[in-house]
Amino acid sequence: MLHFESDYMAGAHPEVLQRLIETNLEQTVGYGADEYTARARALIREACGAPEARVHFLVGGTQTNATVIDGLLARHEGVLAAESGHISVHEAGAIEASGHKVLTLPQHEGKVRAEDVARYIDDFYRDETYEHMVAPGMLYISFPTEYGTLYSLAELEALSQVCHKAKIPLYIDGARLGYALGAEGCDVTLRDIARLADLFYIGGTKVGALFGEAVVVTNPSLLPHFFPLVKQHGALLAKGRLLGVQFEALFSDGLYERIGRKATSLALRLKEGFERLGYRSVVDSPTNQQFFLLPNEVVDRLKPHAGFEYWGPRGERESTVRFVTSWNTTDNDITALLQLLEQK
Amino acid sequence: MLHFESDYMAGAHPEVLQRLIETNLEQTVGYGADEYTARARALIREACGAPEARVHFLVGGTQTNATVIDGLLARHEGVLAAESGHISVHEAGAIEASGHKVLTLPQHEGKVRAEDVARYIDDFYRDETYEHMVAPGMLYISFPTEYGTLYSLAELEALSQVCHKAKIPLYIDGARLGYALGAEGCDVTLRDIARLADLFYIGGTKVGALFGEAVVVTNPSLLPHFFPLVKQHGALLAKGRLLGVQFEALFSDGLYERIGRKATSLALRLKEGFERLGYRSVVDSPTNQQFFLLPNEVVDRLKPHAGFEYWGPRGERESTVRFVTSWNTTDNDITALLQLLEQK
Amino acid sequence: MLHFESDYMAGAHPEVLQRLIETNLEQTVGYGADEYTARARALIREACGAPEARVHFLVGGTQTNATVIDGLLARHEGVLAAESGHISVHEAGAIEASGHKVLTLPQHEGKVRAEDVARYIDDFYRDETYEHMVAPGMLYISFPTEYGTLYSLAELEALSQVCHKAKIPLYIDGARLGYALGAEGCDVTLRDIARLADLFYIGGTKVGALFGEAVVVTNPSLLPHFFPLVKQHGALLAKGRLLGVQFEALFSDGLYERIGRKATSLALRLKEGFERLGYRSVVDSPTNQQFFLLPNEVVDRLKPHAGFEYWGPRGERESTVRFVTSWNTTDNDITALLQLLEQK
Amino acid sequence: MLHFESDYMAGAHPEVLQRLIETNLEQTVGYGADEYTARARALIREACGAPEARVHFLVGGTQTNATVIDGLLARHEGVLAAESGHISVHEAGAIEASGHKVLTLPQHEGKVRAEDVARYIDDFYRDETYEHMVAPGMLYISFPTEYGTLYSLAELEALSQVCHKAKIPLYIDGARLGYALGAEGCDVTLRDIARLADLFYIGGTKVGALFGEAVVVTNPSLLPHFFPLVKQHGALLAKGRLLGVQFEALFSDGLYERIGRKATSLALRLKEGFERLGYRSVVDSPTNQQFFLLPNEVVDRLKPHAGFEYWGPRGERESTVRFVTSWNTTDNDITALLQLLEQK
Repeated sequence: MLHFESDYMAGAHPEVLQRLIETNLEQTVGYGADEYTARARALIREACGAPEARVHFLVGGTQTNATVIDGLLARHEGVLAAESGHISVHEAGAIEASGHKVLTLPQHEGKVRAEDVARYIDDFYRDETYEHMVAPGMLYISFPTEYGTLYSLAELEALSQVCHKAKIPLYIDGARLGYALGAEGCDVTLRDIARLADLFYIGGTKVGALFGEAVVVTNPSLLPHFFPLVKQHGALLAKGRLLGVQFEALFSDGLYERIGRKATSLALRLKEGFERLGYRSVVDSPTNQQFFLLPNEVVDRLKPHAGFEYWGPRGERESTVRFVTSWNTTDNDITALLQLLEQK
Repeated sequence: MLHFESDYMAGAHPEVLQRLIETNLEQTVGYGADEYTARARALIREACGAPEARVHFLVGGTQTNATVIDGLLARHEGVLAAESGHISVHEAGAIEASGHKVLTLPQHEGKVRAEDVARYIDDFYRDETYEHMVAPGMLYISFPTEYGTLYSLAELEALSQVCHKAKIPLYIDGARLGYALGAEGCDVTLRDIARLADLFYIGGTKVGALFGEAVVVTNPSLLPHFFPLVKQHGALLAKGRLLGVQFEALFSDGLYERIGRKATSLALRLKEGFERLGYRSVVDSPTNQQFFLLPNEVVDRLKPHAGFEYWGPRGERESTVRFVTSWNTTDNDITALLQLLEQK
Repeated sequence: MLHFESDYMAGAHPEVLQRLIETNLEQTVGYGADEYTARARALIREACGAPEARVHFLVGGTQTNATVIDGLLARHEGVLAAESGHISVHEAGAIEASGHKVLTLPQHEGKVRAEDVARYIDDFYRDETYEHMVAPGMLYISFPTEYGTLYSLAELEALSQVCHKAKIPLYIDGARLGYALGAEGCDVTLRDIARLADLFYIGGTKVGALFGEAVVVTNPSLLPHFFPLVKQHGALLAKGRLLGVQFEALFSDGLYERIGRKATSLALRLKEGFERLGYRSVVDSPTNQQFFLLPNEVVDRLKPHAGFEYWGPRGERESTVRFVTSWNTTDNDITALLQLLEQK
Repeated sequence: MLHFESDYMAGAHPEVLQRLIETNLEQTVGYGADEYTARARALIREACGAPEARVHFLVGGTQTNATVIDGLLARHEGVLAAESGHISVHEAGAIEASGHKVLTLPQHEGKVRAEDVARYIDDFYRDETYEHMVAPGMLYISFPTEYGTLYSLAELEALSQVCHKAKIPLYIDGARLGYALGAEGCDVTLRDIARLADLFYIGGTKVGALFGEAVVVTNPSLLPHFFPLVKQHGALLAKGRLLGVQFEALFSDGLYERIGRKATSLALRLKEGFERLGYRSVVDSPTNQQFFLLPNEVVDRLKPHAGFEYWGPRGERESTVRFVTSWNTTDNDITALLQLLEQK
């Protein structure tokens, strides 16, 4: 059976697991005050070119978004996000559960446009009754987006400018950040992210770790007293060093970059294979998530042999499907999938 | 350096780690719908003698308490707990953050008394203004308590009766449950817990796992729609099978019991050693946490060679300290510690 | 100066104020346990043809919506509402502040369609990942809507059926209910509302009272323990009898109906006057809120002499404006306004 | 029947009601942007000797406490209060409902001591695990207290110093403030309150208004963006001018002071009467709440003729009871009550 359902189906990348094995019996203080965590912080600051940045390690993505957003917003503020944004749709109300409204913006292949953000904010404050409405207190974007698409450097610069002009923080959800930075044609670097965002997180769970996300805060005025908030949100790991050990491994010997490049090049091969066989991409994604329009009989023919995500029907005869690669996808997996596809 | 600071300083028990290594490259569905998790559930139900129980796996203790309590209480209800209970003191307001008041009861070596619970509830409803106050909606106890003490079977029976008479659930925080069940003289079994509590959790983080807590719900009417609540509370692990794999290991070949017995027998040896040398126990704890009154010069003499927790001064010349054993404490550790203690 | 800005600009209807004056020095118990409140409850039950209904009196509309919705929804549920619904837009995040997401539906002149509600619920449960999203836990509609429009009896029947089929309560925001029931052509009675909705509120603030809203709960299973929730939400008035006295007056001698009929007939005269002079209604509203498209020079000419609400530009030369009548609008006010309009 | 149950049993003081009647048909903008509210603000600033203070008008006490505390505290902070404080006991969990823990201090006749506040804060930050606990973020006191007692000027100075040293705001709940300032022997003035507290509220509901509390913020850095928070908490009155009109009346011709002096002098007469007849005061209260120890037969004898609050038994033969005077208590009421008491 081949697996393209998602990028969190296997455990940890062998180099990450190896470090967990080597350090397993060591005894360290808890809650992230250990030296592995300190070294992981230093490596991330260096990779971001942000020596002053504060780095916090949390366990998972929904938890990270809920904690960060709760920490950034005042009671009367909400978070701006694409209507397709993960926090708008797939976080079980975790944002609202801590009291904040998600203010949705139109999405274009999963992306929000700087002019839409600017217009939202202008319209809001031009409305005389604005104090009766929820104020836009920050902007949330995902990079890559939920559809695998990427913002160009110019688009990120524009979003950053709009946010800073409006004095609201720009927060980037990097659950799959590695698969953006490693993508062919991505003109954005980790340093650009650190420079343009006020804070963001580097996803570990989907990019080689067993679990873990690294929140990088480059705007020093944000998230004071974050530790108790992390604990309140159930995001504090007793054996915090497990996060430090994993991120130290991910940011050693260029592992994080290697994972991103490999998974996205395999995704590209997969995409070209599908298109060569005449199947159309639904979204122009350069990252590890690929979306295709497949005839239903092809969907049925593949199912017994390959796992992938069904997104819904498109008319009578076709369906939209998602194939995802990750650090543990192999060349042979792609070859085998394409052979399945060719068979008549 | 010897380590007795806490029971979450090392990684996972070798037998648990081994299973994580063996299964690392397997690909399974996420969020706990995998077969490892299914098997772990079955093993726990069997160990509890509760074939109908629902079992949920969460990541950490604070998170588990906050999620369970939030799921059990109506808006107008609070949770009864000892004034020394973990949720009253050391959870950074996680309970209040989801809108619930902790209603405190007097503690006796960390334990609450059935008669105090009954009196609280009677007094509450006898007060004509009770609708202006927070109603007692559940009882939280920890087993073992924060002071390492244990409820006797008779005491648990009494608490269970009081709760059922008042129609409020009894919830047991079992962060260190293994170190209670394995303790010499403990007359309570896991089956008793499952029979007397409406729900409880079996701690993994402090008892051999890298992380993870297993919530066992024996009262079928409780916690409907728990999954989205778990996600809202940031307690849903994408690679849920990591919890299943670990608890499957902990509940195979009696590992959970072995860990508990070993750590508590070493704690007992440690206690007897201290007392033999004339140092007094502050609390009569049969579990893996031991509390002593030590002369300050002894504290200073030990510090460079052994880690332990300082609880505060007692008068001018003495201090209260805590020594904790766990699955990874060895006989040699105890021997070495006692030798340090004997040296003049 | 003429006033058409809103329906909460004056104090109380003279008949309501008279009762407050007559009872001012009487001493009664607080929090709504007095006899005036008891009588008001009885009168409302009778007017609703719902002898079993529970009736609660709160102070204001936002407060009432936030308290009721908080009481109806489980943690994992959200409230379905028109994207133009008051709770979606103009309640400063009060719904999210108590932890609930507003799930928006398309609006048609402020109304939601039964088929859209049904489709939303069907699509939700057909999505395999629905437990990662916020479940539709109730339906909120306003009657009349924020645009002054009315649901027909058939439309309400359809919405009620959809909700009951889906086992979610139908809640009607009746902030301006009197101006719906009194409107010419409205085929819905208060008894229909009580029969079709699981609960609703009868607005007092905008319909003759100084303040106050009456929540009528006809579905006996809803809102147990509502009293402490009302207090938690800051909606409990110490001198509760002030609400009882006012609603007793509003439901005596058909006052509530008289207010509704008078204000809507004046609104109709106003509307006909505008249209006769060639100004177009933007929405076909039969109630006390009227929306017109006016040339900007007309807007400027009226401003110094009449208050109304500016809703925004329509193209270069025109603007949308709102005129509102209420219990204290007079025939002379309408005559004077139409004369202003005619002047060149 | 005589009424001493509480100070919120009648409507409004005649001078307040008169102004509501005179202004009833006037039409003004809503939400407190009217001129009556502006004048009331000016009068209160003047009475407080605080020309820069911001003044907000809310509807009730619980609502005011919940909104102010929610606005003052960061997510990780709680509010320090006497264990007998209204927010600790009688607010139905309204404080916790918005996510904050009430951190209790020992009470001495309802008062907290500066040294206890200082010790709590010192101990908190001396504890190495303080980030796992709820930080003291503000101090709440009531003046007069729930037992009718008063802080001396020296005691308030000391509390103010402790708070400012710890950089946490001092908030005073003045639900019955008028009955403190008017009490014989009270050495604290409204200007002292304004000088020593960072913010406080002047109670209207219990001191002559139909309803309404005036929040006075003298520390300019506190409660930015308070308006939407007030709305979120259901504390925003549509016809805001009703609050302005009432407080304008209360702060004209010294009405607020007159009410306070009269009610407390009557309370003093009542107290002296009881003591002259040999009945003991339980608390030494100089304000409008008086607490006595009465033989049960006296309690039974009074009940049919006079309303008062039963606080509970004291031994077999006696009970504690509370008698409350207010603006509408008369000399004759006291005379009649004392005659009842004398009868054998």
